[in-house]
Amino acid sequence: MTAKPIPKVRLQAQAKAGEIIEIKTLIAHEMESGQRKDVSGQIIPRKIINRFIAAFNGKPVFEAEWHPAISANPYQSFFFKAVESGEFTFTWKDDDGSEYVTVNKLTVA
Amino acid sequence: MTAKPIPKVRLQAQAKAGEIIEIKTLIAHEMESGQRKDVSGQIIPRKIINRFIAAFNGKPVFEAEWHPAISANPYQSFFFKAVESGEFTFTWKDDDGSEYVTVNKLTVA
Repeated sequence: MTAKPIPKVRLQAQAKAGEIIEIKTLIAHEMESGQRKDVSGQIIPRKIINRFIAAFNGKPVFEAEWHPAISANPYQSFFFKAVESGEFTFTWKDDDGSEYVTVNKLTVA
Repeated sequence: MTAKPIPKVRLQAQAKAGEIIEIKTLIAHEMESGQRKDVSGQIIPRKIINRFIAAFNGKPVFEAEWHPAISANPYQSFFFKAVESGEFTFTWKDDDGSEYVTVNKLTVA
C-alpha cells in the first residue's frame, strides 16, 4: 500500500498585468510503468498519473499527458501570462480513477 | 510576416539503463492569444502552438496542450526514464496547420 500522493505547487501570489509567471508543480507518485517484474517474476501492474490539467478561472491553460516512460514524482512547470486576478485549479488524474486537486489564488494588481 | 519557428532541444546523447534524464525544449513563437487589439482597434487573430508531442521509438512519452494564456516562446521540459537506445521525435503543432519536427538520438549503454 502506498500513501496518497501529495501535490506541491509553487507560484507567486501577486503579479502585474502582463507579467509572465512560472508555475511549478510536483506530485509524489511512484509512476509504476507496468513493465517491471516483482521478485517472483510477476509483472507489477501499471499505475501512473496519466494527465495533468491546469485551469485558471475555469478555463484550461495547460494540460499534459504522461506516458509510462515519465519518471516517478513527475515535475511539471509552465509559463503563464497574468492578465487578471483569479484562481488556479490543478488536477492530476491517476490510472486508478483518483483525482488529486489543489487550488491557488493569484492577485493581479 | 514572422519567421518560421525554430525549435531547440537539449538532452544528453548517452545515458545508463534506468537513468532519469531531463529533456528541455523551447520554440521561438509569438503565441498570439487572439485577445489583443492592433493600433486600429482590430482584434489580432489567435495563432498559437496548441500541442507538443514527444515520442521515443514511435511511442508517445509526453504530450502537452497549450492554451492562449501560455507565454511566447514556450519552454517545455520533462523527465524521462532511459531504458533502451533510440530516437526521440518532437513535434509542435501550430494553429495554422504547420508542424515543426526535430529528431534526437539517445544511446543507452
